[in-house]
Amino acid sequence: MDILNDEYYMRLALEIAAKAAGQTGINPVVGCVVVKEGRIIGIGTHLKRGTGHAEVHALQMAGDEAEGATVYVTLEPCSHYGKTPPCCERIIAAKAARVVVAAGDPNPQVSGKGISRLREEGIDVAVGVLEQDSQQMNEKFNKYITTKMPFVTLKTASTLDGKIASHTGDSRWVTGAVAREQVHTLRHQHEAIMVGIGTVLADDPLLNTRASVPAINPVRIIVDSTLRLPLSARVVTDRSIRTIVLASGHAAVDKRKSLEAAGVEVMECGNEAKVDLEIAMQKLGELEIGSILLEGGGLLNGAMLEAGLIDKIMLYFAAKIIGGEQAPGTFSFNGFEKMADAIELEQVKVEMAGEDICVTGYPVYKK
Amino acid sequence: MDILNDEYYMRLALEIAAKAAGQTGINPVVGCVVVKEGRIIGIGTHLKRGTGHAEVHALQMAGDEAEGATVYVTLEPCSHYGKTPPCCERIIAAKAARVVVAAGDPNPQVSGKGISRLREEGIDVAVGVLEQDSQQMNEKFNKYITTKMPFVTLKTASTLDGKIASHTGDSRWVTGAVAREQVHTLRHQHEAIMVGIGTVLADDPLLNTRASVPAINPVRIIVDSTLRLPLSARVVTDRSIRTIVLASGHAAVDKRKSLEAAGVEVMECGNEAKVDLEIAMQKLGELEIGSILLEGGGLLNGAMLEAGLIDKIMLYFAAKIIGGEQAPGTFSFNGFEKMADAIELEQVKVEMAGEDICVTGYPVYKK
Repeated sequence: MDILNDEYYMRLALEIAAKAAGQTGINPVVGCVVVKEGRIIGIGTHLKRGTGHAEVHALQMAGDEAEGATVYVTLEPCSHYGKTPPCCERIIAAKAARVVVAAGDPNPQVSGKGISRLREEGIDVAVGVLEQDSQQMNEKFNKYITTKMPFVTLKTASTLDGKIASHTGDSRWVTGAVAREQVHTLRHQHEAIMVGIGTVLADDPLLNTRASVPAINPVRIIVDSTLRLPLSARVVTDRSIRTIVLASGHAAVDKRKSLEAAGVEVMECGNEAKVDLEIAMQKLGELEIGSILLEGGGLLNGAMLEAGLIDKIMLYFAAKIIGGEQAPGTFSFNGFEKMADAIELEQVKVEMAGEDICVTGYPVYKK
Repeated sequence: MDILNDEYYMRLALEIAAKAAGQTGINPVVGCVVVKEGRIIGIGTHLKRGTGHAEVHALQMAGDEAEGATVYVTLEPCSHYGKTPPCCERIIAAKAARVVVAAGDPNPQVSGKGISRLREEGIDVAVGVLEQDSQQMNEKFNKYITTKMPFVTLKTASTLDGKIASHTGDSRWVTGAVAREQVHTLRHQHEAIMVGIGTVLADDPLLNTRASVPAINPVRIIVDSTLRLPLSARVVTDRSIRTIVLASGHAAVDKRKSLEAAGVEVMECGNEAKVDLEIAMQKLGELEIGSILLEGGGLLNGAMLEAGLIDKIMLYFAAKIIGGEQAPGTFSFNGFEKMADAIELEQVKVEMAGEDICVTGYPVYKK
């Protein structure tokens, strides 16, 4: 059971923050709990970019009682004027006595300045309570704010022999209902979803988020070097979700114009035969797309992995064996000559997802 | 923590039995604990085929005190004269008051007769305490005693994309030290180890059990339809372990004779171009080989799976991705056209094995 200490309250702050994942855009998710004399007097979480930060909501709930209170916050309070005034000043104005911070803000505009500012005013600041939990919760934000490149989560669903379909192409279904529900939750929690044109041509997917409750639909990104995307595809005809097509500079201008006329954004990514994925990620970052769920076929997965652009990997395995040497695998690329050169995952976690197995990890790229 | 009840003692009986796995041949492993007035007065385990059963050892330790005691035994006591006298009679002679049995003996020669015999004598018999644990512990015995076919455990080691080597054939090492130590423990616990000739030609393995303590070496079985096995192979020249080669009836008689002269047993399995694996399993069963650890390459794994001859599957996954569409996979066979026809595993269990992941399950074959 929980023990009453700083972690007791910080864990609540983390929990209320985590559920807002997907609705803060490129902003971090942040939770805040204000405690005084053994009682919670305010809770808050950042809900939407451009609106109040977690501390502001929580101090608002606490009202005048905040004087002398302890403020638990999962991320260092901001010290700069962004879209809202700095939270540090709000905490100082509320006369809080103590601030407990889970993790420093990697945003170069904050990065320690918030903590210094509070200490200047004589507030007792403790840093590092459940730090790793906070950092992992904001892994997408942490990458984007420091590199301006989107954090890419690869999700695959395969059999235990690594096949995403049978040799005839049949893939309905690889994994079970629970895994598929988790994938729609992942879509809700990412700003964009990325597939290759092969997937669109084969399945004509809608690429939206389907859950038992209303959910957020991420931007659709289709990698389509030569603009093979038909105007009749559902990702084109369904205008309720933004669709961005990544193409080579060599793609036919006419086709580009007709796609654009249909409401699709076409983004040129280099002048090679194939989309330059590194350039693509930079340009998507410029559009303030901070996170991408990659649901590619083997070719796109392999190319993104080879380019070192995948940050996190979630492999769902159905507990079955399909066979077929020609059946498509999770990663189609030339591969490494030596087993020792394989791309290893770190922080590996294994969980059951209903009847399926989910392996999560972070690829380590050798330079 | 443990609670003092029938399961408390039965769990001890299971633990002492389980560690004898691998040293009882086609016999089951069985543990026995004798308890009287709140104290353990005897423990025993079956150690070797043809020697005393668990009950005999435990009652021996208990001596005259056994009168009025409770006997916990993981498998129904035998009622027939096999290589040793029936345990039922020993329990009756010891005047035990109560017998608690985990699981009935599937051996058609026993199968309920032991329990009836004890009840005839007025002994209170309870059946089914930790029954599933006992049945799983003796899954090899249970198959062999009812079918006379060996229980086959498939073990593979692959990357997360299902590759057992790179596209150049490099496979040193896929998994880490802990997984490899577990595999040697599995060898100790099976009566035979089976590989294809491709593995022997590629790696010239010794196929023995290497552990930090002395271990049992299983019989080597090499599937080699056309008798390509060189006389210089270590599985031939090392005579300390029995080697059985499975060949087609079409294999060259000269080569057969020279292998036999070198001390290798050659077993004809059908008259097709390839070894008939079903016949092979029947013949190995006739040799009283009750369990096989299959460590094949993709071809042998695929053929055994297609033939429905694999009873249990243990897939070790290294947390890495090697790529390479031509890199060999865990199962090389034509595969199924429909994802719905894939062979599913049941009772799936996932565990970490050091840095690697081990998925265990039992394939369900559709008729």
